[in-house]
Order: sequence, then C-alpha cells, then structure tokens
Amino acid sequence: MTENEWIIYLKKYLHQNDQVLATHNEDCAVIKVDDRRYLLLTTDALVEDVHFKLHYTDYYSLGVKLASINLSDIAAMGGKPLWALLTLGSKEPLDSSWLDPLMEGLLTTLERYGAKLVGGDTVRSDTFFLNLSLIGETPKPILRSGAKPGDSIFVSKELGLSSAFLRYIVDTPLEKIPAPVREAHLRPIPQVELGLAIREVANSAIDISDGLLLDLYRICLASGVSAEIKLDHLPKSPYANMEEALSGGEDYALLFTVEGDNIEKLKRVSSELNIRLYYIGNIIQGENKLFLIDERGERKLLSPKGYDHFTFPLQP
Amino acid sequence: MTENEWIIYLKKYLHQNDQVLATHNEDCAVIKVDDRRYLLLTTDALVEDVHFKLHYTDYYSLGVKLASINLSDIAAMGGKPLWALLTLGSKEPLDSSWLDPLMEGLLTTLERYGAKLVGGDTVRSDTFFLNLSLIGETPKPILRSGAKPGDSIFVSKELGLSSAFLRYIVDTPLEKIPAPVREAHLRPIPQVELGLAIREVANSAIDISDGLLLDLYRICLASGVSAEIKLDHLPKSPYANMEEALSGGEDYALLFTVEGDNIEKLKRVSSELNIRLYYIGNIIQGENKLFLIDERGERKLLSPKGYDHFTFPLQP
Repeated sequence: MTENEWIIYLKKYLHQNDQVLATHNEDCAVIKVDDRRYLLLTTDALVEDVHFKLHYTDYYSLGVKLASINLSDIAAMGGKPLWALLTLGSKEPLDSSWLDPLMEGLLTTLERYGAKLVGGDTVRSDTFFLNLSLIGETPKPILRSGAKPGDSIFVSKELGLSSAFLRYIVDTPLEKIPAPVREAHLRPIPQVELGLAIREVANSAIDISDGLLLDLYRICLASGVSAEIKLDHLPKSPYANMEEALSGGEDYALLFTVEGDNIEKLKRVSSELNIRLYYIGNIIQGENKLFLIDERGERKLLSPKGYDHFTFPLQP
Repeated sequence: MTENEWIIYLKKYLHQNDQVLATHNEDCAVIKVDDRRYLLLTTDALVEDVHFKLHYTDYYSLGVKLASINLSDIAAMGGKPLWALLTLGSKEPLDSSWLDPLMEGLLTTLERYGAKLVGGDTVRSDTFFLNLSLIGETPKPILRSGAKPGDSIFVSKELGLSSAFLRYIVDTPLEKIPAPVREAHLRPIPQVELGLAIREVANSAIDISDGLLLDLYRICLASGVSAEIKLDHLPKSPYANMEEALSGGEDYALLFTVEGDNIEKLKRVSSELNIRLYYIGNIIQGENKLFLIDERGERKLLSPKGYDHFTFPLQP
C-alpha cells in the first residue's frame, strides 16, 4: 500500500459529519466546537533511520523538528497551537544526556509558538521513535478545498533546501554543508504567524511536506481545480536543483491561494511579518491538472506518477 | 531511568498553570476550558514484543486493546471520549489482510463509547508499533488527588486476570487458556459508563494499569494520604494468584474512593449499570503508606520497592 493508498484506505474509517469537518485530506482533523471555534488535531512521528539518522542529527535538533513538523500542520490551517502530547519509544535506557537536549529542543520550539507540552508517555521499542500529537484552535480554518479559478498561488520560502541536505550528506561532512541547507533540514521553521495572518486572506492552504507539486496537486484535488506554475517565478534555492525544489519535500513552507481582491492585504501581511512571499502561478479551471509554464512560455502538463511523484519534462 | 524516574523527569518539562490542571500525575492531562468544561488528553502506545506478541494476539484484538487502554484513561477521570488520532509504524507493507481487522477492532471499540477516529498517520518502522491519542471531555474531572481519610476504596473488576494470561501463555496453547483470562488480556473492557456515573460520587479515581498496589499508592501520593486494604475483601480472580491480583497490572478496572455520605448513591450506580463494585478497604490519615490487613486481622506495612513494585509479606 503506498502512502496515497493508505490515505484512501483510511478514509472509510475516518469519521466525518457536520461537526467533524475534514479529516483524511487536510493537514489536521477539524472539529467544529461552535461558529467561531474549531479544534485542530494533528499527529506526526519521526522514526530513526527512516526520518533521521543520529550520525547527523543532534538531539536538540530532533526535538525542534518533531515540534516543527506538527506546528506546520496547524500553521497551514490558520491555527494557534495549544497543547501537545509526546510518545517516546526507545531501546536505550532513558538518560538525561540525550533526553535533556531533546526536550529542550522540543519545548523551546513549542513554546516559541505558544504551545505547551501537557502529557507524555514512554515505551520500550527496538526502534527509536517519537510521536507528537498537537491540538490547536482557530476561529476559521483555512482548508485545502477553498481554491478558486483565478486565485494567485504563493509559497512562503525558497524551496528545495531540506531535500538538498539529503544529497549533500551522502559525501559531505556535516560541518561543510552550507548552513541554510543544514538548518532547513535539521531545524525547520514552522510558519505559525504567517498561517494566522493569512487566515482572512487565503482561500486555501497546505504546508509543503511532500514537495511543491504533490502538495499543490492535493489542493487541486480537494478544490476540484487545476493549477499552472510559472517556472521562472519558482523560488528555487540556489543550493537546490530543480527536482528538489519541485518535489523534494520537507520544506515546511506554506503554499496558499489568494484571490485578486485580497492581494493588497497579502502584501501588507508580508511586509508586517517581514516574510517574503513568492507568487508562482495561478489556479485555473479544470479538474486536478498541473501545468508548468517554462522559460519560453511553453505550457506542459505534468503527470502524477503513482500520485506520490511527478514525472516532468525538465532538466535541472 | 525507570518509569517513575521518567515521570519525575518529565514533570519539569510539563506545563501546569490555572488552565492546565494536572499533567504528569493523572491519567490524562486536564485542560480547563471554562467552569463546566474540561478537555482530557491522553496518549498510549503498544509496541510489538514489548506489549504484545503476534503469535497470540490477533489484529482485531490489538485494535480493541489500543482503543481500550486509552479509553480507560478517560474513564478514570469521569470523561466522555470524543476524538482519536492513530499513528501506525510498520515494517510490513500496509495490507488490508491485517489492517482491516485491526481497524475494525479499533473503530468498533472507540465507537461503542462514542469516540471517533478523526486522523491517522503511518510511518515506516522496523518495529511494529501503534500509538493512539484520545481526547475527551468532562464537566468535572475526577482527580487522583481528591482522596480523603475515611473514604472507602472500591475496585470495579475481579483482579489479576490479565497478568495471569502471561503466566498461562508460557506453556498453554491459546485455545486452552480459560476464556475470561484470554479476554481480559487481549480485549480488555474500558469502564467508560462507570467513570461517568461515579463522577458526582467519587473523591478520587485511577484506572488499574500497573497493578492495584502501585495505582493505589499513586492515589495516596497525589492526595497525601495512606490506605489500608483488607485481604479478605480483595476480589482476586480464581484464575489469578495473589501477586497477580495485587501487582499484576493491565486490569483496566477503576479504583476509586467514596466518602460515607455517597455510599448509598454508589450502590444505586452499581445496580443501575449492573456492575459489581468491590469494597476493599479505607483511606486513612498519614502520608503515602499502604497497609494490608490479613485474614487474621494483622496489619502489615507494604514497602514500595523502587516505586514500581511492592514487596509484601504474602504467600499465594
């Protein structure tokens, strides 16, 4: 079962009704408490040798990343993070030599965005893993399903840095890897303030965890629209190649769509928060298609390959 | 670090204030929303070869147990379970031959008590593990810290069945193990209705996950009281030995204390729900001591051995 098949599979088991607004196809489950109050629930795990290796990840960074990947899910829905629960699976005896920096990284990051760790459980496990569940709140969730033809598409970071790290680390000593690449992968920054600020402006949003193309495709699927991206507008990091920028993943940027009337408001948000936002293309009519407009103005259809990846006619 | 040392360690990292009522020393984190509404948050994991073995646990039962151990935490605080998030770590490709029964067991059990699965995540992991986070609600949480000298102590099930299973399974084929023993271990029943019903009656409560003595000791610690148990009142299951009944764990019974004025109300609860409740002793003055009164009326002090276990002067 691929990740996508799992999501489709899970769909039949996930509850959805008037109170439970969105589950399998959003960054968080959304529970309507009343007209001005929605709970946001998310959970994300990091597993050793799958999501990180301890020869290049220090424990403080691991704590930061565990917090950030969950905070980013709340950010993508325009939410305020509140309460977190930690599960720690460890073969090693728990020992403050590594627990202290792990907890410091986790707590510092959660608290920077106003979230609090309120519970924790530890289990013995041959595989070292960490699971965080995070609960947030919003008066108005930004859904993936709100994109409309005519919306402009924005991303909030240069793309590809995090996955470039995985190319560098193969043959470059950690300390020789450029700092922006290292930081993007090991200690990603969740854009919580931005998520809150675009709540009244964006029609739809998602955080880029699996790559720009796939996550944009998810917006198209949820909204029943298509999208075109302008290659010359793409904020590819100078450290990344084109594939990393388009499909690398783990950027934890926000990807969102805004209609014309709100563009001026968005500019104010950008300057108030001092976050550069990159216009990369437009939502268009049609169902679930992604087009790339190259430097020569030629428009090419991208084909999702088994959903999780795209084939695209590009050379870096 | 022992489990207790971990709990003490975690304490310094867990947030607690006027809104976050109780964290490290309760079954759930308790968040005060307003005077009549508290959120209850809990998380619990099951790891293969630590908490279960697949040669005797079928996947349906595994789903039941994952739900039950979390539901029992909500029950112990007098809460109504609401929303659940699942994380599944698996080396095997996800495959409906085992996922279907797992999800059926999980969902059937959650839904029996009104809880809904609203989110799920899957990760690759060399060790098979399942983590559930469960959110509940109550107008008034039953805390561990409310026990008062003079309270009567009750338990809500015969004790020792679940841990007796671990003795049986060593040399008895699964199908030859007595059904009550098998069911208690593989598909424990969380006492959610009972938790709700004793909310206005009990001064304190906990669910028995680590054995009667240790969990009663936790009530004493949280309440600053002592307790005495009458051995001849102990509802030891006929399948269990005395050590299993006192310290075996995984009973998922409720252990709670009730003051004299409320005993009549408790009797009505018991008869309305048709759940037999066992009076086993009393809360007494003094700090954090457990006494056992044996059949001859002799009173013996039990010594917690490294907190997690007790030495006691008993022969089965």
